[in-house]
Amino acid sequence: MVLDPQTHEKLLKKAERPAKLAEVWHPFYKGKIEIIPKCKVEDMSDFSVWYTPGVARSCQLIKEDLDRGSVEALYTHTNKWNTIAVLSDGTRVLGLGDIGPEAALPVMEGKGLLFKYLGGVDAFPLTVSTKDPEEIIQLVKWIQPAFGGINLEDISHPKCFTILDRLRKDKEIQIPVWHDDQQGTAAIALAAFYNALKLVGKKIDEVKVVMYGAGAAGIGIARLLVAAGVKIGNIIMLDSKGILHPNRCDKELLKEKYPEKWEFAVNGNKEGLRGGLDEAVKGADAIMALSVPKPGTIKPEHIKAMADKPIVFALANPLPEIWPWDAEEAGAAVVATGRSDFPNQVNNSLIFPGLFRGVLDVRAYTITDQMAIAAAKEVARVAEEKGLRKDYIVPSMQEREVFPREAVAVAEEAMKTGIARVKKSREELFDMANYMISRTEKINKALLELGLIKRPPEVD
Amino acid sequence: MVLDPQTHEKLLKKAERPAKLAEVWHPFYKGKIEIIPKCKVEDMSDFSVWYTPGVARSCQLIKEDLDRGSVEALYTHTNKWNTIAVLSDGTRVLGLGDIGPEAALPVMEGKGLLFKYLGGVDAFPLTVSTKDPEEIIQLVKWIQPAFGGINLEDISHPKCFTILDRLRKDKEIQIPVWHDDQQGTAAIALAAFYNALKLVGKKIDEVKVVMYGAGAAGIGIARLLVAAGVKIGNIIMLDSKGILHPNRCDKELLKEKYPEKWEFAVNGNKEGLRGGLDEAVKGADAIMALSVPKPGTIKPEHIKAMADKPIVFALANPLPEIWPWDAEEAGAAVVATGRSDFPNQVNNSLIFPGLFRGVLDVRAYTITDQMAIAAAKEVARVAEEKGLRKDYIVPSMQEREVFPREAVAVAEEAMKTGIARVKKSREELFDMANYMISRTEKINKALLELGLIKRPPEVD
Repeated sequence: MVLDPQTHEKLLKKAERPAKLAEVWHPFYKGKIEIIPKCKVEDMSDFSVWYTPGVARSCQLIKEDLDRGSVEALYTHTNKWNTIAVLSDGTRVLGLGDIGPEAALPVMEGKGLLFKYLGGVDAFPLTVSTKDPEEIIQLVKWIQPAFGGINLEDISHPKCFTILDRLRKDKEIQIPVWHDDQQGTAAIALAAFYNALKLVGKKIDEVKVVMYGAGAAGIGIARLLVAAGVKIGNIIMLDSKGILHPNRCDKELLKEKYPEKWEFAVNGNKEGLRGGLDEAVKGADAIMALSVPKPGTIKPEHIKAMADKPIVFALANPLPEIWPWDAEEAGAAVVATGRSDFPNQVNNSLIFPGLFRGVLDVRAYTITDQMAIAAAKEVARVAEEKGLRKDYIVPSMQEREVFPREAVAVAEEAMKTGIARVKKSREELFDMANYMISRTEKINKALLELGLIKRPPEVD
Repeated sequence: MVLDPQTHEKLLKKAERPAKLAEVWHPFYKGKIEIIPKCKVEDMSDFSVWYTPGVARSCQLIKEDLDRGSVEALYTHTNKWNTIAVLSDGTRVLGLGDIGPEAALPVMEGKGLLFKYLGGVDAFPLTVSTKDPEEIIQLVKWIQPAFGGINLEDISHPKCFTILDRLRKDKEIQIPVWHDDQQGTAAIALAAFYNALKLVGKKIDEVKVVMYGAGAAGIGIARLLVAAGVKIGNIIMLDSKGILHPNRCDKELLKEKYPEKWEFAVNGNKEGLRGGLDEAVKGADAIMALSVPKPGTIKPEHIKAMADKPIVFALANPLPEIWPWDAEEAGAAVVATGRSDFPNQVNNSLIFPGLFRGVLDVRAYTITDQMAIAAAKEVARVAEEKGLRKDYIVPSMQEREVFPREAVAVAEEAMKTGIARVKKSREELFDMANYMISRTEKINKALLELGLIKRPPEVD
């Protein structure tokens, strides 16, 4: 099927509409989130409990507990248990690149909105003026007392790997740190991949996967695939210069500056392939592309050269590397993209709200790969229970049950592996997650009905 | 009047009640503030405007504006215009001292609650793990993009002076920085002082003032009194070692480590007094005490030694330096304390919410002393219009009209002196402040009625 110009135009129009609305709606609300009291204030005497003199008692109890080595009072007398930072230096924002911390703010606010609406998590947008990885690590250490977790966002690579890896390993860091562009994208891609494998009847430890793109998301996906059972030797990773292998002419640079790529050059690609995508795809079971947002980047011939029942994830945004209909015509058994207007959207919004809900509800002190895998498996299960089809391998955001279920799965994995600070029953976890998540929707609805949130103007 | 043991007991009981409630209520709500959407979310398609792909348009518009040297889109497409940090290192929290950033969190959350409820300001509690002034300054520079202002809180002295002074002067800092313990306390003390002077019929540029205490609040008050017209030579400041004068045996230490005290040693106390409080009070028109929270610190004899119609501000918390009835019996014409259960409470909660409302509404890039004085004058005016009495020289928090009026006064002063980034009419300013402030009360009431904020349990 040749790309139909009318379809193309329609797709572009669809993408224009949200931008047009954003131009009017964002200034109408002047931002998307706000901070409100979550406790009762019926008269001014309540302030003597919430502030001086009463508040001193909470401070004392926290201090006494900390001196005894317990964080109990800290996590029950303050909102630390439910508060995270959405931290970005604005160096790699959406498809816009390094637009700086001020221009990145709308995205981080939007992320805060999603975190609360879908996960019940209070997420504060914190964009920072330093781009230096050491300084960002230092900053996280300094602000740690106020937060129950850190969500790193839209930080350019390769420094995003350094920052995440260092913070996850650092003994000074007592709260979970997550980089959504790596880990969130990886977890939802894995969820979709689990179900794609079920549809084509292949086993995860047998498949050969082409990872087309070696940025934050590409590396993140490849790493999580390995943690989930794909043999690293079966992963062929490509960057803009082609297939990664140990004898690339830029190998010194790779070793020194891109150790996360070098890992896949050395341990991946056990066949020792060289060249580009033409060479990489031969006999591959799946291609995961996060490369150039341009249909035609992957060609029908690439898919034809793959193994039987090929899986094609063309995840570049806003335009996939190949149109889904072209991929299918070329023989793809399952196709996924990053777009909400196509079937099988690989959308990390299905992961981070529920995952963090579970992480926070058991006060986990880190987020392991196994916890991300637990999230992916539960998301996959939600779709599987409803019946997998080639155009339905992942739930959509409308399927709200996915979030509390994911929270429970993540929390249980954390408890099982000793990452959780508190233990809760499955039922408690579900009820808590469900309550926290549904509450925000109810608040928004109520404030809209009361006119305390106004309706935005119509836009033609 | 001798201190009646029953009265004493009753006062202590009153102070115990909020602490008792805090023990139950704080863990009931697990914190006091939360982050919610302030825009409509009616179906998942709205997320395509608030987040990708639509949000990219806001990012682009902000970037384009910044490249042209304008912050217009930044202040209209995000919540920066209304967001501040309540930043503390937890080194001098209430009367509790250096309890650390975690134990300080309940206070900063409480401050966030007051900022929103009384001023409509989104104030995020940010407690930090570094105590180093240089590092705190660095941190403020790094987080600047996400905030429209910084409220420093409960930072020990003398470093609080360094931090504030440096940040106010720094060209890199494009947002207002305020230290509430210095400036907020100073502004409300000044408001009360204006009205006390009216009652006793004395002129600000003629009075002799004893400043008993040279911590953050003492220095802050003394500095603002000077800015408001008190002659610096007429200020006698005392620290724990007695009256400050240029020949103190610790003068080298003062010069080097406490330049803010040294200023008053050299330029204050033109009579060259030496000694302690006994010597300082002779013939003084007013005493402002922020010293030891213990009645009896100021004695009736001290007041008897003052000039005619003495003004006594005994501001230590939770117990004043002298009981008001003892001060009055000794001849005080006007007495103020820091307690909400006595008349004339000098309470900085009357300043910071309204002041920041005005500052943010005109996007002021700093807060000058003249703006703080404008706030003080307007607060004084609210009380004056209702009729000053010796037991009514400042409004209470119940008198809600004070906040929008203060906002207007501050904003107008900022516009007049070129500190404001935008200009607005008096009416616009008042309507905006009034809307923002009253909205939070309505939201809290609505959520309580709907059970989305639950009622706390009864406490005996």
